[in-house]
Amino acid sequence: MKELHKEKTIPKATAKRLPLYLRYLKMLGDSGVTRIKSKEFSDVIQVPSATIRRDFSHLGELGRSGYGYDVPYLIEVFSHILNTQEEKRIALIGCGNLGKALIKNNFRRNENLNIVCAFDTEAELIGLSVDDIVIQPMEKLEDEIKRTGVTVAISTVPSQFAQEAIDKIVDAGITAILNFAPDRVTVPHNVNVQYIDLTTELQTLIYFDETFSSKKA
Amino acid sequence: MKELHKEKTIPKATAKRLPLYLRYLKMLGDSGVTRIKSKEFSDVIQVPSATIRRDFSHLGELGRSGYGYDVPYLIEVFSHILNTQEEKRIALIGCGNLGKALIKNNFRRNENLNIVCAFDTEAELIGLSVDDIVIQPMEKLEDEIKRTGVTVAISTVPSQFAQEAIDKIVDAGITAILNFAPDRVTVPHNVNVQYIDLTTELQTLIYFDETFSSKKA
Repeated sequence: MKELHKEKTIPKATAKRLPLYLRYLKMLGDSGVTRIKSKEFSDVIQVPSATIRRDFSHLGELGRSGYGYDVPYLIEVFSHILNTQEEKRIALIGCGNLGKALIKNNFRRNENLNIVCAFDTEAELIGLSVDDIVIQPMEKLEDEIKRTGVTVAISTVPSQFAQEAIDKIVDAGITAILNFAPDRVTVPHNVNVQYIDLTTELQTLIYFDETFSSKKA
Repeated sequence: MKELHKEKTIPKATAKRLPLYLRYLKMLGDSGVTRIKSKEFSDVIQVPSATIRRDFSHLGELGRSGYGYDVPYLIEVFSHILNTQEEKRIALIGCGNLGKALIKNNFRRNENLNIVCAFDTEAELIGLSVDDIVIQPMEKLEDEIKRTGVTVAISTVPSQFAQEAIDKIVDAGITAILNFAPDRVTVPHNVNVQYIDLTTELQTLIYFDETFSSKKA
């Protein structure tokens, strides 16, 4: 194991919940809450309190038994771990209906996540403006990413063209890619691809709903 | 514990991977693959082979050591568990950019998942057609859900109005809701809400990417 810049290795399942924890802690902080117990936080966030306590234990000494957690301190620690103070610039690849919706929405709840450029291969889309972002041809990807300081890409390119698009994103030096096409793509080991698969999410939901309904019957 | 109609209780983490397994098994089956080892399947699907073997072990005797798994049989078992042969009709609540993109996409990779009706509160949207689906006012929700046999709802209503929209969906008798607003809503215990939180997904991706990059440095 090489030395890590982060404090310690946090389990992946814990890391996945950190952004959710941080969002709710900020909401609590904004409402004037300065101290919270895991049970109370569990009620707000709908995560079991044992999970919260275990997750928090991986992050150091954050609270005391019977006292609860200090909300401003948690916000500071979690912000530091997630490095949310720094702006992340995002390139969007694929400007169909979903891509346009993402540009228009543009993570507006988080001022440090910004889609700053957009690309497509369709001649009829190139040059169009969506919320002040001009859609550019894929040939401009690498130059624009470098010029604008983009470090993250979102691809909404359909599965049959996704590998080709992802290859170009990787060639442009991006190592963090959110991919809305569910089929697995091949990338070098230093590249992280996170899949958003709405069909799978929906099927899982239906499965749980039907299992749950059986339980009630 | 009441008696379950399902064969046995499957761990939630396993159940979450079932739709992904099934999609890839179908792709393999379509390519003429009839038998696969967990290691080979792991390479295709990018899930550790130990996880695959553990998941499959929860579902009964699906393979033999050294022989691998029978692909058509797995497809049959997983389809049965996920009940994917049956059409699921979906109501979409909230017809902004994202809602319209979802209607146009309409889970076209899965012919048994169909958005059949759409609703909004905005007067200017009501009566508009998006891919042959006419946007209707929220007052029609309950009647339309009953008329069309909808059992699942997708809400793209923004956080500040999400609770109100979800209450109406629940009142209409729906117990499976996919919610694109990340703030937790309150629902009765028999209702399942699955959250799609793109900001959190992106923050988690960035966190892993930066941790990973530190490791390489």
